[in-house]
Formats: sequence, C-alpha cells, structure tokens
Amino acid sequence: MKTKIVAPTEQAYQSPLLIKSLLLSGKRYEPTREIVYRDLIRYDYTTLYQRICRLANVLTTMGIQAGDTVAVMDWDSHRYLEAYFAVPMIGAVLHHVNVRLSPDQISYTMTHAEDDLLLVHDDFLAVAEQIVPQVTRLRGVVQLTDGASATETSLNTLGEYEQLLAAAETQYDFPDFDENSVATTFYTTGTTGNPKGVYFSHRQLVLHTLNSAMTLGSIDGLGAFRSDDVYMPMTPMFHVHAWGVPYVATLLGAKQVYPGRYDPNFLVGLFQREKVTFSHGVPTVLQMILNCEAAKEADLSGWKMLTGGSAPTLGMANEMAERGILFFTAYGMSETCPIITASYLPASVRALPMQEQMPYRIRTGIPVGLVDMQIRDMEGNELPHDGEQMGEIVVRAPWLTQGYFKEPEKSAELWEGGWMHTGDVASIEPSGVLQIKDRIKDVIKTGGEWVSSLEIESLISLHPDVSEVAVVGVPDKRWDERPLARVVAMKDSQLTAELLKAHLQGYVDSGRINKWAIPEIIHIVAEIPKTSVGKINKKRLREMIANDEH
Amino acid sequence: MKTKIVAPTEQAYQSPLLIKSLLLSGKRYEPTREIVYRDLIRYDYTTLYQRICRLANVLTTMGIQAGDTVAVMDWDSHRYLEAYFAVPMIGAVLHHVNVRLSPDQISYTMTHAEDDLLLVHDDFLAVAEQIVPQVTRLRGVVQLTDGASATETSLNTLGEYEQLLAAAETQYDFPDFDENSVATTFYTTGTTGNPKGVYFSHRQLVLHTLNSAMTLGSIDGLGAFRSDDVYMPMTPMFHVHAWGVPYVATLLGAKQVYPGRYDPNFLVGLFQREKVTFSHGVPTVLQMILNCEAAKEADLSGWKMLTGGSAPTLGMANEMAERGILFFTAYGMSETCPIITASYLPASVRALPMQEQMPYRIRTGIPVGLVDMQIRDMEGNELPHDGEQMGEIVVRAPWLTQGYFKEPEKSAELWEGGWMHTGDVASIEPSGVLQIKDRIKDVIKTGGEWVSSLEIESLISLHPDVSEVAVVGVPDKRWDERPLARVVAMKDSQLTAELLKAHLQGYVDSGRINKWAIPEIIHIVAEIPKTSVGKINKKRLREMIANDEH
Repeated sequence: MKTKIVAPTEQAYQSPLLIKSLLLSGKRYEPTREIVYRDLIRYDYTTLYQRICRLANVLTTMGIQAGDTVAVMDWDSHRYLEAYFAVPMIGAVLHHVNVRLSPDQISYTMTHAEDDLLLVHDDFLAVAEQIVPQVTRLRGVVQLTDGASATETSLNTLGEYEQLLAAAETQYDFPDFDENSVATTFYTTGTTGNPKGVYFSHRQLVLHTLNSAMTLGSIDGLGAFRSDDVYMPMTPMFHVHAWGVPYVATLLGAKQVYPGRYDPNFLVGLFQREKVTFSHGVPTVLQMILNCEAAKEADLSGWKMLTGGSAPTLGMANEMAERGILFFTAYGMSETCPIITASYLPASVRALPMQEQMPYRIRTGIPVGLVDMQIRDMEGNELPHDGEQMGEIVVRAPWLTQGYFKEPEKSAELWEGGWMHTGDVASIEPSGVLQIKDRIKDVIKTGGEWVSSLEIESLISLHPDVSEVAVVGVPDKRWDERPLARVVAMKDSQLTAELLKAHLQGYVDSGRINKWAIPEIIHIVAEIPKTSVGKINKKRLREMIANDEH
Repeated sequence: MKTKIVAPTEQAYQSPLLIKSLLLSGKRYEPTREIVYRDLIRYDYTTLYQRICRLANVLTTMGIQAGDTVAVMDWDSHRYLEAYFAVPMIGAVLHHVNVRLSPDQISYTMTHAEDDLLLVHDDFLAVAEQIVPQVTRLRGVVQLTDGASATETSLNTLGEYEQLLAAAETQYDFPDFDENSVATTFYTTGTTGNPKGVYFSHRQLVLHTLNSAMTLGSIDGLGAFRSDDVYMPMTPMFHVHAWGVPYVATLLGAKQVYPGRYDPNFLVGLFQREKVTFSHGVPTVLQMILNCEAAKEADLSGWKMLTGGSAPTLGMANEMAERGILFFTAYGMSETCPIITASYLPASVRALPMQEQMPYRIRTGIPVGLVDMQIRDMEGNELPHDGEQMGEIVVRAPWLTQGYFKEPEKSAELWEGGWMHTGDVASIEPSGVLQIKDRIKDVIKTGGEWVSSLEIESLISLHPDVSEVAVVGVPDKRWDERPLARVVAMKDSQLTAELLKAHLQGYVDSGRINKWAIPEIIHIVAEIPKTSVGKINKKRLREMIANDEH
C-alpha cells in the first residue's frame, strides 16, 4: 500500500532513537540527585554524565570502536550503570555476562558474542584467569576494584577502572548512528544445548524505557515508580537489563542505589540508610530479604516491590503485605527486554485492604502499552479470553529480540508465524489478566486439549499423604499424550495410585478438571529427580520413564 | 562508523510505531471507562474501538485509500477522537482544519493539503458551501450532526456521520505500513504569506505520546495526568493535536470528555457533572472560564490545568491558585507536535504554599525527555545557561515536523544548521528553566547584542503616565538596529520623550538593562496599530515608521 511519505528537508535532524537521548533529561531535572554505590561511592547526575564521558574516552583510547563488544562481569554497581550508557553510546555492544554460569559456559558466551574487552570485578578474577586465554578475540582486561588495593592477578590488565577514569577527559562527543545498531547482548540458558544470545538495539531500549516509565508512573493501578523514588535493584544488572529500570531511573532523574553483591542484611541496611522506596527481585530474593536478621527489626513499610521471574506464593505476598510492602508483579523473559505485562489494579481492587489485594497483585498482569498479545491453541488459532482455555502466549512489541545471535533455526522457531513464541502456556481472564499455567514443553497435549502439568501436580499435592509430586506427559497412540504422575508419599502413609485417582475424581465431579486430566499411571516412588537449583528435572524424569527407571 | 547491526530473522515482526498500537492498552485496562460528548453521547472503550473500525469501513467504502487526505471541520467531539485514530490507521492523512481561518485561507489550506474528503459539522456548513467548489480535488463531504435532524445544505453530501457509522461493520483489519507515513497535517499562520503546512508521521506521534505520558505521569514535579484522571480538552482538537493529550488519554484508558464548541458556562457544567480532573488551554480561555457565571458558584479545586501558547500573567495564576486549581505550563508550537518543555517543580518548591509556587508554575519550564535544546546567539554559538544571555531557542527531538509541506525554502530556514529554529528568544537559568523573552523577529539587534522589545515595553509601561507602548528595532548604520518606542500617554498627562529616557536611565543605573536598550527616539502618539485580535501589529508599525507616519 502506498501511504504519503514526505522526504524530510535536507537539513532536518531525524532524531534517531539512541541511548544517549535517555541521558538528557535526568541531569536537567535533578543535577544534584545522587548515584550511590554501597557505602563506597556517591556522586551526582552531573558527575554521572562526566564519568560516562570519561569511560567513553577510556574505551576509545583502548581502541574500542563502533561494532566492538565489551563484556562486563560485575555485581550491581555505579560502574555497571556507566557501562549501560557509555558502551552503547560509542557504538559498541555491551555484553552482560551472566556470572552464575559455569566457566565453560561463560567462555562459550564470550567467544560467541565476539567480545573484544572484558571489565571484570576482583571477585571474578579467578574465573577470568581461566577464561581469558580461551577467548582468543579478546584484546584486553580492565580490573574493577572496590576500595584501595586491587587483587593480584596473573592477567595482564590494562589498568583499574577508577584510576583509568580519573585520568580521562570529562567530555566526549557522542556520535549519531543507526538506531537499529545492537546496544546490548546477553545469554539465556535452557535445559538443552548451548546458551542462546539475545540482542537489543538502541531503538528497542529507548522504546522499552519510555514505555516502562509510562507504565510504572502513569497507570494509577500501579503508581509504583516516579522521579522522587529512590531506586535499588535486587535483580542483577547482568540479568535482562535489571528489568530495564536503571534506564528508566536515569531518564527520570531518580536517586539510584547500587548494592554490589546481594547480601540480604546489607540490602536492608542500604534500604534504611538511603531511604530506598522502589526495588525489584525474583521471589526467592525477596524471601531472603524478608527472612534476614536485619529485616526483623526494620520498618519495611512503603517499600514498593516489583516481582517477576516466577510466580510468588500467596503466603509470601501476604507476609509482604503484613510488613507494609507494596507488592506487584510483571512478566517477561530474556527475549522480551523484558517487560510485557504488569499488575493492574482497578479502583475497586485498590479500595480493598492490602491483604485482600494480594491475590490480584501476584497475578501475571495485563499486557502493557504497545504490546500485542494472544494465546494460541496447538493449531495456532487465537483463543478467547474466557479464563478457561489455555494456549501458548505469543507476543508482538517494539522491543523483542529479533532472533538468537547466529542461531538461524532457533530464531525461526522463536518467531514462527511472525509472532514471538514465549514457550509459556496461559489463559486470559475476561478482565484481561494473564494466568500462566505451564511451560509449553511441560504441558500435556491429550485428546486435542492442553492440560497443565502444574495444575495436576497442585491438585495431587492437596492429598494429605503426598510429600512430592511430578507430572509429565507420556506418548499415547490414541490421545497423543497422557499424563503420568510420580509421587513420593509421606512417611508411613499407605498411599496408592487408586486412592489418588479417587482424590482426583472429586475434582472431575466438581468440574474443576476434565477426566482426561487424571493420570492413567501413577507411580509411588522414593524420590523425584531435581536440577542443581532444586527444581523438578522433568527432562530427566521423561528419560527415566522412557527407560522404565524408578 | 560501522556499528553492529544484526538482520532480524526472516519471520520476526518489526513492530513499526503506528498509531494503531496506541489503541491496544486503554481498552485492556479499562474496557468500561467512558468517552463523553457534551450531554449527547457516552460510550465505553470497547465501543470506541468498534466505532473506529466502523469509521474505517465508512471511509474505505467511500474510496478513501492509503495516501489520501481527510479533512475535518468540527468542534471537540467523540467524532474527532475517532478520526484521530481511524484516518491514520487506514494509511490516510488527517487534516485538522483550523476553522478560525478565513474561508479563503481554509480553501487555500485544503487545496494545498490535497484533501480528498471533508467531514464537516453543521456549524461550518455555510463556510463549506463556499469552499467546496474551490477545492477541486475533493471527492465528497460527510455531514457531522449533533442531535436528530441535520441542517439543510446545498452540498451533495455522502451522508450523516452517525447514520453512516451505524450501518458499518464493527471490525476492520488495520494494515501495517511504514512508520514514517504522514498521519496528520495542519497549517500555521504567520503575519506574512500563506499558511504553512506542518506534518507528523505515525512514528512521531507514537513517540510524542509515550514521552508526554511519561512526563505528565512519572515526573513528580508535575504529577498531572494519570490513568484515573478525567480529561477534558480546552485547546481545540484542530490545534496541534489538542497538545497530544487525546492520544495520551486513550493509551492510558482514562475517561475523556469532549465539550463541543467552547462555552465557558457549559464547560464548567461538564467539569462538575463528569468530575473532570485534567484540562489544558491557552491563558485567554482559562481566564474566560474563571470569569464566567457558572465558575463563580462552582468548586474548582483539584482541577489540574496545563497552559501554554502564551505566557500566563501572575495575576491570573494567583486567581487559579485561590480557586484551588493546580496550574502548570508547557511550551511548544505547531512545528513541535507540540510539547518540548514543561514546568518542573523541585521538592523544595512543592513544599511551598500554592500561591508561592505560582511564579515557578507559570514559567516556560524545562525541556522534557528526549528533547535536546540550546540557545544560540546571532552567529549560531551556543550560549551558557546563566539566566542572562538571550539567544534563539533551537531544538532537536524525535517529533518535530521535518519541514513545511511543499515549501522547500521555508523548510530549509526552519532547519538551518540541523536544528529546528523556534523563532523564540530566551535565556536559560542555571536551574535549567527556560525564560522566553521575545520573538526573534521582534528582538532588537544592537551593538552585537540582543535586546528584548518586550522587556523595554515592560519597563516603559511602569511609568505612571504611560497608557500603551510598542518598541521595535529600526535600522541603524553604526549599531545595526536601535530601539524606537511609540507611546500613548495617559489622558491629561505631560509625558515627554525626555521624561521616559530619564525613567529608563534608572534601570540602566541599577544594572537591569544596558544603556543600548534606551530608545534614542520615543514618539508620543495618539494610537498604536493593532491586529484583528488586539495584539500590537509590529509589522504595520515598522511600515509606519519607515514611511514616517504617526
């Protein structure tokens, strides 16, 4: 179709969407607001801009050019914030290295991402000493040291970050370039294969930042993050841009507090001393905070807490509510930059006591602005928003990775049919709220319908004699798949498969599940295989079942 | 420079920034929130979307295609809101006709904009009957009627809006296209020459909307417009997108109230009945509201009021404060979409009583996010932000018109040197606040410096015997220009040029102005020429001085 496009006049400035444009407003609004790193460093927004220029000069002097890639291995710090801006602003790519991966995996990702320079905190020097010789493209290492004396290392480094910055100029003329240039990259790990690299352009990050700022600030159902807030991340900065909030905070000119390595007692201390009002973290981190010594004596009321990554339990949410924490949820993944849904509380819900709001606040939320989302059945048909039917979440938005770096087949799978496939199965309520039910690889496809393995597990676990349970789909000629359950019984109980089937039949009779959801085969077993982080290892379980191992 | 650009995987969806994406979230958040038109029509967001589809079907049936232009002559209405979306969403251009122009000017703009279809309210039928025969490209006219019976017309119309919509389908598959396609156009009038057409693309409007939503919602110094607010415009929808707020309101899912033709008493009535919380308007409209009968008895407290277009007086602002109106300012123009600056109140100012905040709230404000702004001297050098030196405001932002439609010379002037020239002269305070001093065509260039004609007028007007005053620059061989004043004296006063020069010398002595600012020639005259809207006509005044007319 032929729309009207008028060529800009020759001298008109096109204003590409570049990360440098996110730096303009914060320092205009609040030049004296602070960036704080632990109890070690604090400086204002005017200095932040100067330090970003210094870092750009340091990198340029080291020969880093547009198109090069700079890897960072650091805890959450002012340095990381500076790298969030300076590296993309000179046209280079920032590789957020996941420091939780094994040395072999880190080496793989650094080679795959084509890293040219590594900025590494002293805590990771031992790992870096193993890795650096393997990453042959790497041209240099910069040491990131807290405090006065740097850790000794066998690596031939280019110097220490603070010393290098101190010697650099405070001005840099940041160039313009194509807004589709890659700004950041990082790797996502599945249960199989090598880590996969996602990547985000300047344009995508600017749009994600504007949209997240608008969602957090302008939607009254949340009202969670505005310019007067004091921000402290509790999702690592190497993990999906710390959910994008450092960019939002800088755009707004909010005070920012970076805590270094997460120690719950230290985090609570920073919260109190720096008057933090907004944080985000996965449920396990938030639970660690709630349980730590310092939290027991602290007044946590008014702390706004965004969670995501996995579903928080109602129990934890209620504990948050009791402590006066304002708790809400967002949803996304590495591939989505990440924010694609967030809690929304209509006025009627906000009028309830906080405890009663919690069931709403822990749900996956409603797609945020500019996000188009559908749930789709096995044939790819869009399903209605009836809160019942389950389908895979597929999404379109201006900030989704456009593929996996150098993985054409996996990229094509991710974007099959022109929609990004999340791999999550959900229903959508008539109110628009998304309810995640399962991962698509774990959902059981039976008789033309999807049955959530998590829901069957949840119902089986309600039987008083059940200690642990795992449900997977096993191949079935007639029904495609059928659920199979493995259950660890409570000690000294007399649990049988038949008793459990009778238990589940109750839920069929009440209409909660259909009869296909009752596993034909239920094994009572001694144990269920787990992953290294304690989750049920369904991949291993399927292998065991295929091999008839118990 | 060569940055890293990774080609998207073949099936990846690029998410162009199209106006249709602004429609996704509002109806998800609050499907039952209302759009209200006077006391005539109210419907919810679900219906809004259906009506936009209906309008798209009506337009398509009439043969309107991508690249065509649809003109609207209407007061502020639900219909206009529907056109804001439906027309661009089918790939056509929406021409907001300025109904305040003369019939000849309207005819000129409609011909120049290449209008294909006209949607015209009954109130403008008489004008349309004159114009339509002149706009030869025009293929049809749709009548916009309030209430039951349409006004009779000699025009051969294609039908009445509501009847056409009622007969149309409620679904439309809106296409994707280039985000740089023109979405809207309208004309700006100067004192000389024909009206000039500015134009905005889908991309520009999406970015202006996101950024304005973020500015109004997330910046605590304002906190003026969020999703629970009830919006009623008092800047016409044909005037620079009603400052962009209808798009913001729809994105957020806020209740919207459209008042039709502005009648102050009716506006106050709507404010009360519909519980309006946010409006915007130029100072003269706000003054009309304050002075009307209905306002005298109404409780206006809590009404958030954004003003712009010209500087509000402190007197008016104080009256607003007394009535409990939360008043603040933004700055922009037709060429800028429009918002490029807005009031910002640091916490220290917000702690003051409202009356004392007013001097801050009426100032032009601080550039909003993503806006790069400088003030430049006559040679194009950037001036410091010292609150003293005056220069022309030049600007870059992702939502500025990229030229004047089919006016290459004026476009090149507008964008000279790669920055958009606003034609406004200002200083910038160290706090970042912009202070507009004059229009560049009125500022007096003398001895290598700029002197604000408005400032000299203001100082002269402080003499008790001065009734009216106008200051313009007149050519001078030595100094380039020198100020010349024409003054109307108070009745029966004995005012002389010498007395006024002595009066001004006092300000030179106190350091407020330099001695070049004292007009060498001061004429005491009987009257000063005015424009049709009562402003001083400086163009005519310059002609009179050149011809030695008094």
